[in-house]
Amino acid sequence: MSDLPSPAPQPVDPAIEPSGVPLTEQPHHDSGPSFVPGPRAGLGQEATLRVWVPAAYPARTLALRSVVDGEILTGDLTPRPASDGTGTWWEATLTVANPVVPYRVAVLAEPGARTASGAPVPTYAWLTAAGLVPWDVSDATDFRLVAHEPAPDWVDDAIVYQVFPDRFARSSRIPEDAEGRPIPEDLPAWAVPMRWDEEPAVRGDLTGAQYYGGDLDGIIERLDHIASLGADTVYLTPIFPAGSVHRYDASTFEAVDPLLGGEEALVRLSKALHARGMRLVLDLTTNHTGDTHEWFRAAQADAGSEEAGYYLFTEHPDRYVSWLDVPSLPKLDQRSAALRARLTRGEGSVTARFLDEPVLADGWRIDVANMTGRHGAVDLTREVAREMRGTLRRVRARTGRDTWLVAEHGHDATGDLDGDGWHGTMNYTGFTRPLWAWLAEPGSALNWLGLPMTTPRLPGGAVSRSLRDYNAQMPWPSRLHSQNQLSSHDTPRTRTVVGERGRQLTAVAALAALPGVPTVFAGDELGAEGLTGEHARTPMPWAAIDALSEQAGDPGDADLPVDAEVLEATRTLLGLRREHPALRRGGLRWLHTGDDALVLVRTHPDGDIIVHLARDAHDPVALDLRSLPGVTGAHPLAAVGGATAAADGPLLHLQATAAGATVLAAETTTEPTSV
Amino acid sequence: MSDLPSPAPQPVDPAIEPSGVPLTEQPHHDSGPSFVPGPRAGLGQEATLRVWVPAAYPARTLALRSVVDGEILTGDLTPRPASDGTGTWWEATLTVANPVVPYRVAVLAEPGARTASGAPVPTYAWLTAAGLVPWDVSDATDFRLVAHEPAPDWVDDAIVYQVFPDRFARSSRIPEDAEGRPIPEDLPAWAVPMRWDEEPAVRGDLTGAQYYGGDLDGIIERLDHIASLGADTVYLTPIFPAGSVHRYDASTFEAVDPLLGGEEALVRLSKALHARGMRLVLDLTTNHTGDTHEWFRAAQADAGSEEAGYYLFTEHPDRYVSWLDVPSLPKLDQRSAALRARLTRGEGSVTARFLDEPVLADGWRIDVANMTGRHGAVDLTREVAREMRGTLRRVRARTGRDTWLVAEHGHDATGDLDGDGWHGTMNYTGFTRPLWAWLAEPGSALNWLGLPMTTPRLPGGAVSRSLRDYNAQMPWPSRLHSQNQLSSHDTPRTRTVVGERGRQLTAVAALAALPGVPTVFAGDELGAEGLTGEHARTPMPWAAIDALSEQAGDPGDADLPVDAEVLEATRTLLGLRREHPALRRGGLRWLHTGDDALVLVRTHPDGDIIVHLARDAHDPVALDLRSLPGVTGAHPLAAVGGATAAADGPLLHLQATAAGATVLAAETTTEPTSV
Repeated sequence: MSDLPSPAPQPVDPAIEPSGVPLTEQPHHDSGPSFVPGPRAGLGQEATLRVWVPAAYPARTLALRSVVDGEILTGDLTPRPASDGTGTWWEATLTVANPVVPYRVAVLAEPGARTASGAPVPTYAWLTAAGLVPWDVSDATDFRLVAHEPAPDWVDDAIVYQVFPDRFARSSRIPEDAEGRPIPEDLPAWAVPMRWDEEPAVRGDLTGAQYYGGDLDGIIERLDHIASLGADTVYLTPIFPAGSVHRYDASTFEAVDPLLGGEEALVRLSKALHARGMRLVLDLTTNHTGDTHEWFRAAQADAGSEEAGYYLFTEHPDRYVSWLDVPSLPKLDQRSAALRARLTRGEGSVTARFLDEPVLADGWRIDVANMTGRHGAVDLTREVAREMRGTLRRVRARTGRDTWLVAEHGHDATGDLDGDGWHGTMNYTGFTRPLWAWLAEPGSALNWLGLPMTTPRLPGGAVSRSLRDYNAQMPWPSRLHSQNQLSSHDTPRTRTVVGERGRQLTAVAALAALPGVPTVFAGDELGAEGLTGEHARTPMPWAAIDALSEQAGDPGDADLPVDAEVLEATRTLLGLRREHPALRRGGLRWLHTGDDALVLVRTHPDGDIIVHLARDAHDPVALDLRSLPGVTGAHPLAAVGGATAAADGPLLHLQATAAGATVLAAETTTEPTSV
Repeated sequence: MSDLPSPAPQPVDPAIEPSGVPLTEQPHHDSGPSFVPGPRAGLGQEATLRVWVPAAYPARTLALRSVVDGEILTGDLTPRPASDGTGTWWEATLTVANPVVPYRVAVLAEPGARTASGAPVPTYAWLTAAGLVPWDVSDATDFRLVAHEPAPDWVDDAIVYQVFPDRFARSSRIPEDAEGRPIPEDLPAWAVPMRWDEEPAVRGDLTGAQYYGGDLDGIIERLDHIASLGADTVYLTPIFPAGSVHRYDASTFEAVDPLLGGEEALVRLSKALHARGMRLVLDLTTNHTGDTHEWFRAAQADAGSEEAGYYLFTEHPDRYVSWLDVPSLPKLDQRSAALRARLTRGEGSVTARFLDEPVLADGWRIDVANMTGRHGAVDLTREVAREMRGTLRRVRARTGRDTWLVAEHGHDATGDLDGDGWHGTMNYTGFTRPLWAWLAEPGSALNWLGLPMTTPRLPGGAVSRSLRDYNAQMPWPSRLHSQNQLSSHDTPRTRTVVGERGRQLTAVAALAALPGVPTVFAGDELGAEGLTGEHARTPMPWAAIDALSEQAGDPGDADLPVDAEVLEATRTLLGLRREHPALRRGGLRWLHTGDDALVLVRTHPDGDIIVHLARDAHDPVALDLRSLPGVTGAHPLAAVGGATAAADGPLLHLQATAAGATVLAAETTTEPTSV
């Protein structure tokens, strides 16, 4: 080992680390390729598992506990000390005997043992996906080997840009009135044309009617901007004809809204994206349709019709179950096999149609997936998910196109993510909520993502526990293939939540750094503001964006409605994600969890990446990188806001005078990571 | 409030109470009838929920969060201050819109708020079934309203006595040789007759062959002993003819082993039990049969037979999947509809046959339920469980007999306990493991319930966290209808685990006190010892038991293989359970979790019962009972071992000079518990 003095690890808060052992001194395992090396093991194949015990932690022995065919299976791990004395790899193999095999590792120590820094070591502890716990735990936070067919490989690397089509860009195909309001020939009765620079309503009936005239050709014209962020996938909220501008109240699933340019425009967009090596994800509502939907009209017209069985009429034709009792959104009854054949099951379904020629979409985001098929005593959500996954599989078998299926879910999605249905979720619970709770403006008056209270502000340790405990309950592949969003069309804007540039920079770094598919809601990269989901559906200020890019390098016009620093940081940080496999596919290890500073490392054989997030000025944090296997130093890749990082050999010094973030590449020797 | 000074609550360990708030100062809710009052709400009906916030806790407001049809539903709670100033009831109603409705309560406070004892109060915390947590948590530990059809009402009150038939009592029907070995006419080739006073083998082939000649008529002769303990239900390990003495390798499910007296004897036992108002639970192996089973013989004889489809042949007839690769236990393939029709589904099944005339058993314990139907990519466990539950329902519809279905499960059963299959589990994970980890003899060399290590010894706080975190993941009715066992025929004996009388007394008090059906493995009440499950299958020392009861009051012969104090304590403590509804049906609140002392209260409108468990001498614990709604004092009901309790008005003083336990009845005013 180096002769440099080691900084003493920061004392830990036992509420956050119940083992009492500082994070850098803890044994570590994660589901990334440094700790589960080799190709993915399929059903019946063997996986290799590696656990790193730093020299600071005096383990007596380790034991593997897994669950196979419903019974506990135990196994040995073989210690292989690293020749540089920095620690020991413990290795085992485990057969993937079931589609999902939970496992965890017992770490035993002698009574009275202490870590290098003097922390008492538990004689008995479990190393779980949620961390090191000095008592018996349930299987809920076990690591898992998953033999289910994986998500498309491209999703591991994807960076998504979310577009609300009416608000992104209006092409010249849309005629305007004298004040610049869109007045297409087919303007529906519900639409209230708006000038592009008008502010959307915060709430009320107008929110669904304010029509800005964004269209699909407008998106095609602005792909350079999207690509400049590092994004390679465009996710569109619904494009079906509907009774509102959000289009979650589809009137048919057989066409693309003419207001958006129709199906031809969608095909043009898809081709333009694919020509750039980019992808297209669409949005399907499986929970409900609009009350103007052709199926619902047929259902209302004839109680004996097939379509009447697609819905939940309580008194035909006027009383029926609807989404949160909103009458314009009648709920679908997934018990109807005929409905499922049209909507989700098999090659004749809506699901299949848009993944195939001519649209060739690359995936579906499923709206209100958490409620789909759930009503009273009926719960068919997982069955619908598996069936849709089967539809994707059939399309792939015929066309070779590997597509993504991701489920909106506003609370605990883990029960729906068994690996055989949805590939992932919109991870509000495992990403958005914890990040908001850490980064919210002090005293924020914003609603707490649907709960009857304002957004809380919690210390970093508590936030890391939420991130760890919740995501540990999700199979790792499901987390990797879920969408991480700082905000969406359903929430206030990130900038409004965090209240200042600095914390938004921190938020963007977290988006680039944490496991899961970073998803930028169009406008967030400009520091756009918005108090509600509806108010956040801000039209993109293209004039200002164009002006900014013409000024390149110039600090810019302070009056422009664009935060050039946030835009630049978004490009830099998502660019680092594109560059470094660790940020896309790496495992996750927490190194420090202070109130105002969180430090983590994404672990990957191609090089670990260290990320330091500061929500405010904080006391210097010193970390000895030799606790990471094979790491001998680090060099900074980027710093945003008020955060700085400096490495002195293996000693890393992290500071912040204000909110911000730093990203560093670990420097490694080869030896301790290979055995 | 009384003028008595309040003792300061003990400081809390933040690893155990992450909120930092002492238990007696925390808001409280549980699933018992004090906090979810009124009759059980069925699907679509409203339940009332009550949360108690002691005056010591300065809550600003509370909010209810539930999940209905897959979406978050929020609601208000209405505060109703108790007129004596001891705290506030917060009330809400919640419609049971789904068979299982998860809910939890947000407890908000002003920044800087402190409890009466000065503990900082989190501004934002969730009150969950696992306790008060100052950050966002998953839904896994939510409280749950369950509208599934409940378990039989009698199970709430049951106390079970587990009998391993060969080792309990030999009736005069079994002929003996000159040395007292049983030599029935039908002695099978595998059986090695043993004298009643010989010690069973610890391990090895002999364990399954040692035949002591216990029989069902022997049990009938000893029902007085069983009833004297307070037990009202006899659970028999298998009674089918088999190739071993444990009989988990059945050779048929159509008969009762003649060695045990055959079906006539089982009917006699059932009648004798029912005549005393007692019940009979049998043991069915749904995971496998013996290799001598008539089905397996038919399967081996003809690869084209129906029975060949009951098993998992890898190479007919000699290679097949078996339980943990033991060839004498071929695994059943639950994909076979024909198998399920014979074994588990419907009125023609084995499941139905023994619940009906003439045997009239009152329930089934399902052996290896955790593996049943699980193999490779197949997982039919929950389907089999639901089907068996359906069979019980059909029997009840015809006969009116309401029977119990309880599943053996050695690890995390919560995923199998959705309320519509097994009524409960053998709660090894949520009872046995935590109790062992607390009470194990220091330095115990016993295997840790199947894990490759010796039994750990953990502090009380860690143990209470295991109990809380794990059981919170189980619907409350499932916990109430699960078996709590300190030991079983599959484990070392309680006395051997804990290593001394005092800690066994503590263990018995925990058995009597904690939610779940207390299940005494015959002999535990005598302090019997045994190093392994096999070694623990100790024949009952009837001569000594009889001698002891003849000595009544006399300290007894120290040479007798019976611990009279443990026997007496078992009768006393289980007797208290029979007497007090709180111990059977009450909710659970933890009051103190020290290393060596655990204090809890079972909450019930008919009177709370406080239980103090000491595993060793401990510093005095002082509790102010006014933190419990309506409680003004307490009086001791029992004390065992070295523990003592004294109440000075509402101030409770708990001490121990050695391991032991005390039980107290709370004294209440009516007012704060009724609104």
